[in-house]
Amino acid sequence: MTGLFHMLSEEERLFCDLLERIVAEQIAPKAAQVDETSRFVHDQLGVLAEAGMLGANLPEDYDGAGVSAAALLRAVEIVASGCGSTASALTAHYLATDSILIGGTEAQKAHWLPKAATGEVLGAFALTEPTAGSDPADMKTRATREGDGWRLKGTKCFISNGGVADLVVVYAVTDPAAAHRGISAFLLPKGTPGFEPGPPERTMGLKGGHVFTLNLDCYLPGDALLGAEGQGFKTAMKVLDNGRVEVAAQCIGMAQAALDAAKTYARDRVIGGEALSEKQGIRWMLADMALDMQGARLSALEAARQRDLGTRFSEAAAMAKLTASEAADRVADTALQIHGGYGYTRDFPVERITRDLRIMRIYEGSSEIQRNIIAGHLLAH
Amino acid sequence: MTGLFHMLSEEERLFCDLLERIVAEQIAPKAAQVDETSRFVHDQLGVLAEAGMLGANLPEDYDGAGVSAAALLRAVEIVASGCGSTASALTAHYLATDSILIGGTEAQKAHWLPKAATGEVLGAFALTEPTAGSDPADMKTRATREGDGWRLKGTKCFISNGGVADLVVVYAVTDPAAAHRGISAFLLPKGTPGFEPGPPERTMGLKGGHVFTLNLDCYLPGDALLGAEGQGFKTAMKVLDNGRVEVAAQCIGMAQAALDAAKTYARDRVIGGEALSEKQGIRWMLADMALDMQGARLSALEAARQRDLGTRFSEAAAMAKLTASEAADRVADTALQIHGGYGYTRDFPVERITRDLRIMRIYEGSSEIQRNIIAGHLLAH
Amino acid sequence: MTGLFHMLSEEERLFCDLLERIVAEQIAPKAAQVDETSRFVHDQLGVLAEAGMLGANLPEDYDGAGVSAAALLRAVEIVASGCGSTASALTAHYLATDSILIGGTEAQKAHWLPKAATGEVLGAFALTEPTAGSDPADMKTRATREGDGWRLKGTKCFISNGGVADLVVVYAVTDPAAAHRGISAFLLPKGTPGFEPGPPERTMGLKGGHVFTLNLDCYLPGDALLGAEGQGFKTAMKVLDNGRVEVAAQCIGMAQAALDAAKTYARDRVIGGEALSEKQGIRWMLADMALDMQGARLSALEAARQRDLGTRFSEAAAMAKLTASEAADRVADTALQIHGGYGYTRDFPVERITRDLRIMRIYEGSSEIQRNIIAGHLLAH
Amino acid sequence: MTGLFHMLSEEERLFCDLLERIVAEQIAPKAAQVDETSRFVHDQLGVLAEAGMLGANLPEDYDGAGVSAAALLRAVEIVASGCGSTASALTAHYLATDSILIGGTEAQKAHWLPKAATGEVLGAFALTEPTAGSDPADMKTRATREGDGWRLKGTKCFISNGGVADLVVVYAVTDPAAAHRGISAFLLPKGTPGFEPGPPERTMGLKGGHVFTLNLDCYLPGDALLGAEGQGFKTAMKVLDNGRVEVAAQCIGMAQAALDAAKTYARDRVIGGEALSEKQGIRWMLADMALDMQGARLSALEAARQRDLGTRFSEAAAMAKLTASEAADRVADTALQIHGGYGYTRDFPVERITRDLRIMRIYEGSSEIQRNIIAGHLLAH
Repeated sequence: MTGLFHMLSEEERLFCDLLERIVAEQIAPKAAQVDETSRFVHDQLGVLAEAGMLGANLPEDYDGAGVSAAALLRAVEIVASGCGSTASALTAHYLATDSILIGGTEAQKAHWLPKAATGEVLGAFALTEPTAGSDPADMKTRATREGDGWRLKGTKCFISNGGVADLVVVYAVTDPAAAHRGISAFLLPKGTPGFEPGPPERTMGLKGGHVFTLNLDCYLPGDALLGAEGQGFKTAMKVLDNGRVEVAAQCIGMAQAALDAAKTYARDRVIGGEALSEKQGIRWMLADMALDMQGARLSALEAARQRDLGTRFSEAAAMAKLTASEAADRVADTALQIHGGYGYTRDFPVERITRDLRIMRIYEGSSEIQRNIIAGHLLAH
Repeated sequence: MTGLFHMLSEEERLFCDLLERIVAEQIAPKAAQVDETSRFVHDQLGVLAEAGMLGANLPEDYDGAGVSAAALLRAVEIVASGCGSTASALTAHYLATDSILIGGTEAQKAHWLPKAATGEVLGAFALTEPTAGSDPADMKTRATREGDGWRLKGTKCFISNGGVADLVVVYAVTDPAAAHRGISAFLLPKGTPGFEPGPPERTMGLKGGHVFTLNLDCYLPGDALLGAEGQGFKTAMKVLDNGRVEVAAQCIGMAQAALDAAKTYARDRVIGGEALSEKQGIRWMLADMALDMQGARLSALEAARQRDLGTRFSEAAAMAKLTASEAADRVADTALQIHGGYGYTRDFPVERITRDLRIMRIYEGSSEIQRNIIAGHLLAH
Repeated sequence: MTGLFHMLSEEERLFCDLLERIVAEQIAPKAAQVDETSRFVHDQLGVLAEAGMLGANLPEDYDGAGVSAAALLRAVEIVASGCGSTASALTAHYLATDSILIGGTEAQKAHWLPKAATGEVLGAFALTEPTAGSDPADMKTRATREGDGWRLKGTKCFISNGGVADLVVVYAVTDPAAAHRGISAFLLPKGTPGFEPGPPERTMGLKGGHVFTLNLDCYLPGDALLGAEGQGFKTAMKVLDNGRVEVAAQCIGMAQAALDAAKTYARDRVIGGEALSEKQGIRWMLADMALDMQGARLSALEAARQRDLGTRFSEAAAMAKLTASEAADRVADTALQIHGGYGYTRDFPVERITRDLRIMRIYEGSSEIQRNIIAGHLLAH
Repeated sequence: MTGLFHMLSEEERLFCDLLERIVAEQIAPKAAQVDETSRFVHDQLGVLAEAGMLGANLPEDYDGAGVSAAALLRAVEIVASGCGSTASALTAHYLATDSILIGGTEAQKAHWLPKAATGEVLGAFALTEPTAGSDPADMKTRATREGDGWRLKGTKCFISNGGVADLVVVYAVTDPAAAHRGISAFLLPKGTPGFEPGPPERTMGLKGGHVFTLNLDCYLPGDALLGAEGQGFKTAMKVLDNGRVEVAAQCIGMAQAALDAAKTYARDRVIGGEALSEKQGIRWMLADMALDMQGARLSALEAARQRDLGTRFSEAAAMAKLTASEAADRVADTALQIHGGYGYTRDFPVERITRDLRIMRIYEGSSEIQRNIIAGHLLAH
């Protein structure tokens, strides 16, 4: 299957191979326990930091891994195949550091990115609001000038890492009259007075990758403004393009784990003297799963290819996210079905993977929003 | 919607109306807590016993409610719309009492059924085995004559109520040479030496409707044999026909709760100045949900109609189970999707309903087994 | 399968049995030829007139068969299983006579319906317009008073039977200011000056059930107004409720023929020493077809049941039409697939049935319009 | 969209651009007429021969275009977007010349391929038999030694170009005891006594790309054996890998034409004052079509990439064929649906495209056979 990743350099291949070993040894074995205990994946992020994964999205100038988008895709896929919660927390961190990389001043990049790359600083990305879904146009959080700095006020929700991050990149309206150009991003460090996150949301899955509601009423110094005023929306849109490919990567990794489990089960499970994997109907189910995996990977790789070109790739990102998230849900659902009653228990990983995956069709733009984006591109020509 | 249940008698209608009130007031409000705590639904079954629901599948001769199959369908649907775990435990009890009603001697019926109808005795139905799925042909549990009685030995799995029931109806091989005619049913009361159920399985959902693995090595007296020797398979098959309609009823009830929640959410949630329920794409999603509900109900009602005729209705039961379980999963999935990020949290019921429903395509014969049954009937003509 | 039609009276059963024989002997054998030659099904309608089918939707008072809606459903299904073109022309005739029955004066009913019931007069129903789809709200055809009569002017399209009918019921705007209440229906006999239909449309299928564009510029006498002025929309909506159940009936009949053909083919076709019908994957395909047939029938029967109650049943009609038309397309598609390369040739009936069926998701309100209707009903409560 | 074909060389791009112009000017305008008249696409193949397309699959050594597999994919897609019948006849020709290229002796290649590349010789590929589907294992056609040559006897069916080709590559059993290794290929020129094709099959679509049943009882000289004895199966399998990518290319081209037509229609068609293309539900339909197109193209490009590596790529070919053919049918079906009643008429191209496409899920290995192949590969690891 990794034949699809033929474009990876030798160095990137070694990076991924090593990562595979680390995930198999140190992260995957704890995935069930993470799910049971709902403990945040601090330790797992530490392991990934050692492997260079916390800066895998960053250039070498900022102590990042400097890998291609295809290698990053493959790497996130590997993490997700071991533990969805860890992959979710990891990619939420990327959303924060991508925000700084894309929208920050040189000083901000130099200050924060190397720390983020080593895991000294964990990031979060706060865009979504209770009444605005993933559409920044309805944003209600306001940042108003107060002395030399800013008063940041509002509520963000479904913020992965939000309550445990060292640094939250918060998007807020600085000029309500300026529409999209009136949105700016701010750097909000943990411990800032008026930023007191509550407990994590109680969710169906991804229980070790906590999401939070953030009620904000904080004073921030002037240099907390990320880059220039009014650039926030543009930054966020570019970050989300990246983020959607990373959601696709998570979907692929988790779905691959489900398919692997189903394949093993179908071979081992004998009914009426014949392995499930010998039955035509089951084989066709497995074939459709393999087809879904291939479609998801090719779609994500195409977005990664375009990302490496350095131009906008919103349509490809939307297609990758939509394709991979819907494919992954089908794959996991079929994998669970093949397991029969056992698939419904926590004794097999598909039960957890199914729950972990269910948010993927929703977050960072639901399937419906991706369809809006794709139709918009189609009809623009 | 209940217009579909036009064939109910006035008395049955009153029975259902009262039940709706009871479920709304005493059962639905505890559903989230049942899920959180994984406590078995003893209290809820007590409430249902008072309402006459524990004998709703039994004739009045045995203190049952003596209602039609259509009314029973509607009643189970009502319970499931309030709490899936309760409905699952309830219908597992029906599988046990249906076994006695169909396969028992007059003395066995007279002894056990009135107690079961009042809830004094909770039943379980033990057919499935680890290596046999829902197909009795591969059964390994043996009952051999020992003195005047029987030695019952083997392992049953995924037995709803199995570890908490007062009486388990266990199916076992009494004559390995006689194929289907070599299977008999036995009455196994709680506390019988050698019957020590372990803890309940840890499952994705239905957390208050416990399923158990039962390791059996028990001596049973001669009158523990249910009805005549060798009649077990025939009894089990008839019980499963009933059981599949009741699975359909559960699916319909839970899916209706999900649809109701989605409808409410879609009306209340305003995006860009317009309620979700005004958007064409969302409306079409809701329309497909309504269509799925109607299809599930009509299919289940047709099976109920045939059940009331007193003849075998295996094909209609398989169709009802397959139609309703697949429809319900689609409905719940769309309902969750309409909720967006909120649907993934425990703050809204769709999260729990989605998990509770996922077993319905698997237990009492997976969708694949139902397709086998339906194809068999189709090709028999 | 006809077990589903248990509510038919003995008389209705005999009517259907006779019809089945007539269709099998005189109509089905010509279906392929009708398709090849694109000849209108005049002869077939003559055969059906003899069998009492041209007035099957009418009460005995007007020389109709006076059967229940369920029997009518079954009868149309039988015709469609033999020849889709014939069924389409037949039900277009019903739309015309239903219009008169629902909206006409007693004199109009007495004059036209008995002639329509015997087949002396063939009807057509002209509602759809080029820029209005099936939505009467956008209607552009105008009827204005001229002397004692009316000037009817406009264009109708996709009018089944339109160019061959003896009588066309035309819907037109009589008061543009009155919205839906400004629409009236008119009786337009063949040969009226200014009504010169062109050749039939060249369509994918239903080639013997011609549809026409009608360019109208006619003077009509005063008594050509059907019933009262301004009642046209109300009449049309009621007629369409009936019509949608009849579309469902057509879908069911054609799909049943496709399923029967697939079953036969799957049994006869041996690959690698095993009949197709023995292969698990093919069996599951057949099972899904059987399930689709059952769902379509139950949905249509429910609409028929409500129709017999005499009250509006728009939601049930929309559900029946949507369910049956989508199910039938799936069934025919799978039937063709099971036939392999042979299914693509005119040597087997599935090729024609597939083409005949494709309009069913479009005419008398497309699937999208049915979803609008269903969502409207769902959200009205 | 052609951004996906970024790997094409400048020369290949020019080749495709020119082809696009030629197809738009000389082939697409005749597609409706081809369908109406069922005339074989001789003229169109002549046009393509001029453009170098009849040897587009061949190396320059044999006067072929020598383009990459990706460029070939794009070129076939372009032809199919203009006329499915032409594309089908063209790719059937490729199956013949690929057979010679892969399995022929140097002398055979030197003799036949340059003539095929210029269109002087049109080829056909005869593998399928009435009782064997696409599986060569059940082959009944026999070639037995007779003097210095061979007696070729049997029946082949569904042979595209079979009755009009100048040269048919026929696969036959030369050693029934040797299983797959007992199959050999033969060169059968038009006019050989005992090779008298009947009229073309009457099919649902691709009416200008005739398929034939070939009844064979011919004497062939010794050098009619293609390459070595017993190599036929291996050759055929490699040819089919290529052929499946070309089926995918046809699907993509035809579906793109359908999507383009739907986009145009949705923009032009105004209902209730709003273009169809502005309605959310329709936009989501269009988005799903765009997604299907992207998935089909990426899947086919991946197979093309592997094909250029020169190793076997059966799994990728199966995935491309399955993905593209199922995607294309969905796209065309939705395109027709968006057109409403007009889509059912021959006045718009989607009607024809829908019929032309329907064989794609069947020929050169049905979807079910592709699933068998994919499952086999999946379970081999």
